[in-house]
Formats: sequence, structure tokens, C-alpha cells
Amino acid sequence: MNYIYLDNSATTKPSEASLKKMGEALTVCYGNPSSVHKVGNEAKKMLDEARRRVILSLGFRRENDCRLFFTSGGTEANNMAIFGSVFAKDRPMKNGSRGKIFISAGEHSSVVNAAKRLEAEGFTVLEVPTAGGVLDLDYIKENADNNTVLASFMLANNETGAIYDVKSAFQIIRAASPKAVCHVDAVQAYLKMKFTPTSLSADLLSISAHKIFAPKGAGALYVTHDMIKAKRIIPILYGGGQEDDYRSGTENVPAIVAFGAAAEEGKAQMAERIEKITALREKLLVALGEMDVRANIPEKTLPNIINITLPGIRSEIMLNYLSGEGICISAGSACSTHSSGPSHALLAYGLPKDEADTSVRISLSHENTAEEIDTFISALSRGLQTLAKK
Amino acid sequence: MNYIYLDNSATTKPSEASLKKMGEALTVCYGNPSSVHKVGNEAKKMLDEARRRVILSLGFRRENDCRLFFTSGGTEANNMAIFGSVFAKDRPMKNGSRGKIFISAGEHSSVVNAAKRLEAEGFTVLEVPTAGGVLDLDYIKENADNNTVLASFMLANNETGAIYDVKSAFQIIRAASPKAVCHVDAVQAYLKMKFTPTSLSADLLSISAHKIFAPKGAGALYVTHDMIKAKRIIPILYGGGQEDDYRSGTENVPAIVAFGAAAEEGKAQMAERIEKITALREKLLVALGEMDVRANIPEKTLPNIINITLPGIRSEIMLNYLSGEGICISAGSACSTHSSGPSHALLAYGLPKDEADTSVRISLSHENTAEEIDTFISALSRGLQTLAKK
Repeated sequence: MNYIYLDNSATTKPSEASLKKMGEALTVCYGNPSSVHKVGNEAKKMLDEARRRVILSLGFRRENDCRLFFTSGGTEANNMAIFGSVFAKDRPMKNGSRGKIFISAGEHSSVVNAAKRLEAEGFTVLEVPTAGGVLDLDYIKENADNNTVLASFMLANNETGAIYDVKSAFQIIRAASPKAVCHVDAVQAYLKMKFTPTSLSADLLSISAHKIFAPKGAGALYVTHDMIKAKRIIPILYGGGQEDDYRSGTENVPAIVAFGAAAEEGKAQMAERIEKITALREKLLVALGEMDVRANIPEKTLPNIINITLPGIRSEIMLNYLSGEGICISAGSACSTHSSGPSHALLAYGLPKDEADTSVRISLSHENTAEEIDTFISALSRGLQTLAKK
Repeated sequence: MNYIYLDNSATTKPSEASLKKMGEALTVCYGNPSSVHKVGNEAKKMLDEARRRVILSLGFRRENDCRLFFTSGGTEANNMAIFGSVFAKDRPMKNGSRGKIFISAGEHSSVVNAAKRLEAEGFTVLEVPTAGGVLDLDYIKENADNNTVLASFMLANNETGAIYDVKSAFQIIRAASPKAVCHVDAVQAYLKMKFTPTSLSADLLSISAHKIFAPKGAGALYVTHDMIKAKRIIPILYGGGQEDDYRSGTENVPAIVAFGAAAEEGKAQMAERIEKITALREKLLVALGEMDVRANIPEKTLPNIINITLPGIRSEIMLNYLSGEGICISAGSACSTHSSGPSHALLAYGLPKDEADTSVRISLSHENTAEEIDTFISALSRGLQTLAKK
């Protein structure tokens, strides 16, 4: 059975270019990049090439404009950014406090739960409201002080597509506390909108391979040279000293080189992909409007994510119905499957609890077609009629 | 150019069975296992099957005889075992100490450097001598007390092949401190010798995929049900709650299912593989004896690892020479490439510094042939003559 896959923010199908490169690393260059013989050297070369490709895909002209450490994925990159920067300079304040950490109310669970762990260790975690998909800069102004050690904001929300003004947020944070580390979770925004880590004035920035048509198993943390020089970040995994001692463990060469290939391809095709996705989005929004289904559209948004509120039908019920029809979408994010209750990101966006419970996410890719949108709309329409009767 | 690959303890070439399974996860079942639609469910099923396969490969009859959490590799599994168990029950003692941690003097850098990090946090780390490849049980008897919180020993050493008597070590540790967590790094021993985590009386045990003919990118931590019930381990990565909340981050399904396939295959073929490797080893040892090259053979050893001391030729020089001849071996371990100085494992084994500097490791697999051993011996012989002249 062929599926219509409209869940591209959960994960993507690896591109042919990424799989081809991965195949080389699996069968020919299978060596350990730390081995000093030829099979190892070949793997090392592939790893270096991938790093260059990912750095250039972030908008840098030269590889050595920044540092980039490969991780096992976005979650590890976010955890490394948070724990690695906070513990690099941790010293309890005079009043016994261990410093303030700002996150947004819409963050991914890998940021929320890392922050919660730090809260249990004595840090103060403040959640910046994101009503309507807008990062509340006034809240930051009122609460940031020189006890602030970290701000971690996503550039675009994984459930609503909302783009947060992280640059302005970081300006306020840094004005209050020059020592604060500013981290961007760019997992969803990466290659979906124009930005560079420098344009956001980020110290650290996380990306993930499997959201950009590469396989699962690789992510990366961008780090400025200044962060390294000032020793403002330490590793979270210790061992053989790979990744210049910032991330030990044999490098996942197959996934990393596939990441590099997808990054290069994605950067080259970005404008074209966004254009295609935008056309699909507009078609979808028109059809939803005609069906009287409300789309929750933030002021500034990624083109590929559309969150909609169903009239009185719980999201899981609709997901299940659509899955039976061969259509894949999601309720909130895939990563929220393991937690119960309504999506915290949707509540933070401003949906009442009953609406958060009946909202679903459609996430498009350049590989989707207008016909798929038609089929989805028909199935959704049938689903609304069928399920409303029950 | 075809290489003769005698560096199988650094990494292995993925088997056809593992690549076939990986291919399915990359192209058909590419979903996120946390997604509740069919593409996600298929990925989830593959993940569950892989977990069952790996658990059975550890000698268990039923999947639910233990817990097993997938990680990004052996380094992460070792770090999770060490940090996750120590911080689960961390409370400073009355005297201000934060508890004793036992490791062996021959441990892999992922254990050594995780322990060093804890030492910097106030824990006391004791290195058990391993002269001749024997874990010094008297040292443990003399030093273990009820402040002991963790013992982390490898089952077999990655550089010498020495098998440590971890079971006896754990008995002594537990007699002194019933609360101590006992962890085995079985990355090298896994599928190279008979054992089960239960036969070693391990609370935690680490294994890695890319040492058993699966691709890089996956490892696993075995955990007893008792450890979970008594809340004696916490995660090191926080996020979406994957792996029953013990290891967040989208599961690396392609690498994990390849791991499962290689584990099942490796378990089924284990006796046959060991027999083949043992024959190659004996052939190699006879030839080395005739050449007057000393093999450093521990009392109890894995069949696949042979460390030899070259007469007065630095290991890197010989490695480089052999690489030029199309032969891949290593000096110490691949993971020690990033650190300078002689191998700590070889010094702990008892080699003087100058001998540690001139020792190399040959690590065999069932895919090597008698002809490859002949070719290696000829090249080594030429190398010894050529390089000695310089």
C-alpha cells in the first residue's frame, strides 16, 4: 500500500542522494575514522566532507567560520547545548541560586525536560509565553537579570510552525546578562526558512538530519569560536575524544555522510522546495476554509506546518481514521506520543484545552503533490462526516 | 584496492543480513516509531523486533527477562551506566565524600573519562590493577567499603583481549557495599565468548553494534528489572520519552534493526566463528613465534585479539608501512588515537613504556582467511627488515 505522507515534521523519507552516500560509508569506507590506516582514513575524509557540507548549508562561506559537532540527533544536540553550557561555568550564586534559564512555553520536549532536570538541580527555569506563536519579549525584559545563564529558544515551533523572534530575545537577554549563553533549537526551521546562526546571534544552534531527508541517527550542534575559546561549553559524553573531544564515541559515519549529502542538496534546492510547499499550503488552506475547518496560523510561520482544529473530534480518532485511509498526519508532535494530556505547545499558543485535544498537524514536503492534497481533503471531509455521527 | 582488514576490534564491515534489514528501515519503514499512523507503526514493529533479537543474543530465553535500552553506541551506553547510576542515588556522605567508584586500569576511554569527570565532581575513583591481564581482586578486597557506589569493569580488554573475572570482583564489591551498582563494558566480549549478563551478576551491561558486523550508530545498555524497580538508574538524555523514558531522542531505527539482525546472526554463528578465528589465531601465533616477535598473551583471552611487541619499531611506523601494503591493523585502540602517549591499557598490562610504544594489535574476524594471515606475516616480516635498517 502506498501512503500519503503528510507528517514530514516527525521524520522524512531519506533522499536518494543521501542514501547513495550512506551506502558508500556502509560498504566501502566502513572503517573507524580514528583508525590511522587507509580504511580509517577514507572514513575520516568522508566525515570531514560531511562537516563542510553541513556548515555551508547553514549559510557560512567557509568551513572554519564556526565549529560544528556531530551528535546522534536533535535531542542530543539540545541536551549538549543546555547541560554542556550550564555546567561549563556553573557556580552557585551568593544567594544559593544556581542561575536563571529561559526557555519558551512552546519548546520541544528535549529542551523542556533538560530544563526540568536542571530545575531539580536548583536552577530557576522561566517559560516565556508564546501566545499566538509570538515570543513574549516583554516577559523576558521583566524577568531577565544578571543571574541569567542560558536562553534556549526554538526558531520555529514543531507543532504550529510559528517563527519566534529569537534574535530580539537574545538581545534582551544579553543586555541583562552578558555571560548568558544563547541557544537556538533550529531543528524544524533548518532549510525551511532563510537564516544563519550569525543572523540570529546564536552562540549554539541545533539541527537534525532526519528532518531534512537524511536518515535518523545524526544531528549537529553549531558552536561559535568564541564559545570554545572562552570554554563556555563542555561535553556531555566522555570517551575517546572524537569531535575534538566535544563528543566522544565512534562517529556514526554512514548517517553523518548522508546528513552532509542531504544538507547540500537541501540548501541548493531550498528556494524551489519552499515555493512548491507554499503552493501546496495555499491549496490546502483554501480547501480547509471551504470545509469550515479552522487552521491555526501564527503571524510568522514556516510554510510546511499547518495545525488545524477539528470540530469536536479528538485528534487520535481522526489520525486513526486517516491512517486507515492511507494518510499519515499527526496530533501535536511525534515526540509527544509518550506523554499524556494535551499538547503544551498548543496550550501555549493559546488554544483552550478542548481545542488542543482536537487539533492535528499536517506537515508538507516538496515531495508531496497537489493530487495528494486533494486526496487528503476528501478523506478529511469523509472523516469529519463519519466520525461526527458516532 | 582490496585491503586485508585485521582491525575488527576497531570496527567491522556490516554483514549482508544487517544491511538488508537496514535497507528496509531506510526506504519502506522510514516512519518515526513514535508516530501513531501506519508508517510509524511499521517502524515501531521493526524496533521491537530488534530489541527482542538483541536480548535473545545476550542469552536470555524471553524478551521480558530483562530491560534493554538502545543508545547511539558503546560510549553512550557506558556513559549512561556510569552517570545514570551514580546520579540516581547521589547524596554526599557524612564526611563530605561522594562515594567510591572502582574501574580497572585497563578500561576503555569512555569509562576512564566518565570516571574522571565524576572525580572532578568529588567522587573517589580507584583503578584496579590489571597486570598480566588479571583483575587484581586483592586490591578490591583491600579498598572496597560501604562508600562504594559503582564498579565498572570491562569483560574483555580491547587492546590485549584479556578476560577479567568481573563476577568475582562484583561479589567482593557487593559484600562490602550492597548498594553498589555493578556495570560490565562487554563491547569487545559480546559474541566473542560465552557469557550472559546474569552469569556475570551484572546490574548493567554495555554492548555496541559496530563491533559485531552491524553499522555504526547503535549500542545498548542492558538493565536488570531490579535496577528499574529500585530506581537505581536515571537517563542522561532528556526529551520525548523514547525507550520508556530512559533514552530520549528519535530512535535510530535503521542502525538498530541492523544491530538486531547482526545480533541474531552472530549468536547463531558464534561457535563456528570462534572456531574459525581460533584456527587463524594459532596459525598467526606459530608464524610470529618463528619470526621471534613476542605476542602478549593474557592468561585468559578472547580468541580474536592478539597484541604483539615489535622489536624496536614504533607502532605508528609499522602501521603506516602495513597500510601501504594494504593491511589494516592498529596501535592500541582506534579510540586512543586522539590521546597522546603510550596506551594506558598496555602499561596496566605490565608492558614497560618503550614496549607499549612498539606494540600493535591484530584483531581477527571470521571473515579473515588463512591466505590473509600468510600475506600479513610476509608483509610484517618485510616491514621488520626494512624498518629496522632505517
